[in-house]
Amino acid sequence: MLKLEKLNIPGVNLELEEQLQYKIDQKAKPIGSLGQMESIAKKVGLIQGTLSPALQKPVMLTVASDHHICKEGVSPCPVEITWQQCLNFLDGGGGIGLFSAEFGFDLRVVDAGVDYDFKPHPKLIDAKVRKGSRNFLHEPAMTMEECLLAIDNGRKIVGQIADEGTNVVGFGEMGIGNTSPASALLSVFTGIDIEKCVGPGSGLTKDGVLHKADVLKKSIDKHGISVDPIENLARFGGLEIATITGGMLEAAMRGMIIITDGFITTSALLAAHAIDSKVLDYAFFSHQSKEQGHKLMVDFLKGDPILDLGFRLGEGTGSAVAYSVIKASVAMLNKMTSFDEAAIYNTANDDIRIEE
Amino acid sequence: MLKLEKLNIPGVNLELEEQLQYKIDQKAKPIGSLGQMESIAKKVGLIQGTLSPALQKPVMLTVASDHHICKEGVSPCPVEITWQQCLNFLDGGGGIGLFSAEFGFDLRVVDAGVDYDFKPHPKLIDAKVRKGSRNFLHEPAMTMEECLLAIDNGRKIVGQIADEGTNVVGFGEMGIGNTSPASALLSVFTGIDIEKCVGPGSGLTKDGVLHKADVLKKSIDKHGISVDPIENLARFGGLEIATITGGMLEAAMRGMIIITDGFITTSALLAAHAIDSKVLDYAFFSHQSKEQGHKLMVDFLKGDPILDLGFRLGEGTGSAVAYSVIKASVAMLNKMTSFDEAAIYNTANDDIRIEE
Repeated sequence: MLKLEKLNIPGVNLELEEQLQYKIDQKAKPIGSLGQMESIAKKVGLIQGTLSPALQKPVMLTVASDHHICKEGVSPCPVEITWQQCLNFLDGGGGIGLFSAEFGFDLRVVDAGVDYDFKPHPKLIDAKVRKGSRNFLHEPAMTMEECLLAIDNGRKIVGQIADEGTNVVGFGEMGIGNTSPASALLSVFTGIDIEKCVGPGSGLTKDGVLHKADVLKKSIDKHGISVDPIENLARFGGLEIATITGGMLEAAMRGMIIITDGFITTSALLAAHAIDSKVLDYAFFSHQSKEQGHKLMVDFLKGDPILDLGFRLGEGTGSAVAYSVIKASVAMLNKMTSFDEAAIYNTANDDIRIEE
Repeated sequence: MLKLEKLNIPGVNLELEEQLQYKIDQKAKPIGSLGQMESIAKKVGLIQGTLSPALQKPVMLTVASDHHICKEGVSPCPVEITWQQCLNFLDGGGGIGLFSAEFGFDLRVVDAGVDYDFKPHPKLIDAKVRKGSRNFLHEPAMTMEECLLAIDNGRKIVGQIADEGTNVVGFGEMGIGNTSPASALLSVFTGIDIEKCVGPGSGLTKDGVLHKADVLKKSIDKHGISVDPIENLARFGGLEIATITGGMLEAAMRGMIIITDGFITTSALLAAHAIDSKVLDYAFFSHQSKEQGHKLMVDFLKGDPILDLGFRLGEGTGSAVAYSVIKASVAMLNKMTSFDEAAIYNTANDDIRIEE
């Protein structure tokens, strides 16, 4: 049987924190006046272990899968949308095809389990474990073998892009029905009642949401909750979620910057966190999604979302937009003039500082 | 005596609203799933009166002035910082020098009233009315002539950049002491108690904030509140604020996109709104500032800030960062594929739509 290879996420270099803070506080501005950008810059510096971090070759991994839980009527959308949108993204279309180009990401679409035979495409990564996660009302969403294979696929994909020089990876997803596994994982990993974890996804009615909660409650009752996070991921997750979980763990091990998107990719972070909580040191929460359960995830993981634009699209769209803020934060750390540099103009007073 | 030239801000073309909404709803995504970006795209379309708006040659106007109210100890910062930072910005330094470059703005520093003799610089616009707004504890911050001249300067500057083909203008400011006039204007234009309108600015202590509130209360008691918004602006404003007010009014008249920054530029929008409320149809609130009175301004003007990053720096930094979201929103409207375009891949079902 496959096992998760030993993880070894390095702790970030906290000794550097003070030096990073000092560097930021020397910038020509009132102390703390760039708010969250200052914490972002500091976190990037800690991840890279340097006062002068550099963001290199950002890649967006939009990981796709189908979900046979859809047979229970948990999504209003035809399942064909999953493969159609993958092709659309590869063509530069959809939200993430466009935003990847707009915000400077090299987009790769990962087929983790789409119920469709794609033709090869230079930007499509074939990591299909099977055609669709299983209907977890009746059986675990994945066997342990399938789940571990998906995790391993994610690790290999991220390992490969790291080898190519990428140190920023945005995560996104596509998979009709995938708010169901994400809601179940939220409940299972946090202990929050499943009713509070369920929302309308891409547009369920109120009755639809109640039905979805009922299906998920029955599923959790049937399989129970394990002490092993991977077992829980296998029971209630999805192939794209497990692949993203592996990708996030590998990214942390490689000292990369992880950008999570919305409800689905954050459910993968919940799983990664349950496996090794140090993954959070490498993760940025791009935005606060409108899908109600996302706030519960963010609070549980003590995240500080960069944006709050009312998105509930997924695909990686939030990750892409938030990257512009991360990029500017790093530019601030590296390039913004300090009081000393700016004070060359000050002939009257050598000690001018803005203090808080 | 000077008078404000007749304003004629056109109403936006509301007939277009339905068509813009329809175009956005055809995009390959669940309806409404790009949240605030959809409203931003719609507003830009309404401003420009087209389904396919274009953002051209964005200019950042960082308008600077000194304030002799500083003699009352309302700011912890040496007043020399105003001119020093102007030079720093012109050199590409400071927050706005850096962020203008990072986010694609052509930065112009406008001297509306700095207490310093600048040498000519290609990016420095000389619109100096006098060296510093007057100490409004003792006399109006500007005479009516000075105030009208500053408004007119702002109009001319924006008119000129409009003539050069710019249709996006970000506003920023630099002026040690300028949270005092901004707080006074907030109170005067909204009727909110001055105590609630005062915050620490660039870093006052608690006692400092109380003293500042006391100075502002005495000033408002001394001059009283006029029914004429320009009279109020003259009494309690500042030269950069009046210049920005004029710039915003002209930008609206020219159908340009206005991006407000934080507490100071939004106080200018309060004044512009009191002069002609239609200016709001053209204005985007870039962010929610940490300076406490800013939220009161935003609520009064029913704004919907794009970002909430805890900024309290000013200079135009929030305007610059938020522009990346505005730009992506317009790209979404113009370039994101529709279901029809994406559905070329759908051979099984011609009617696939994601409905809410």
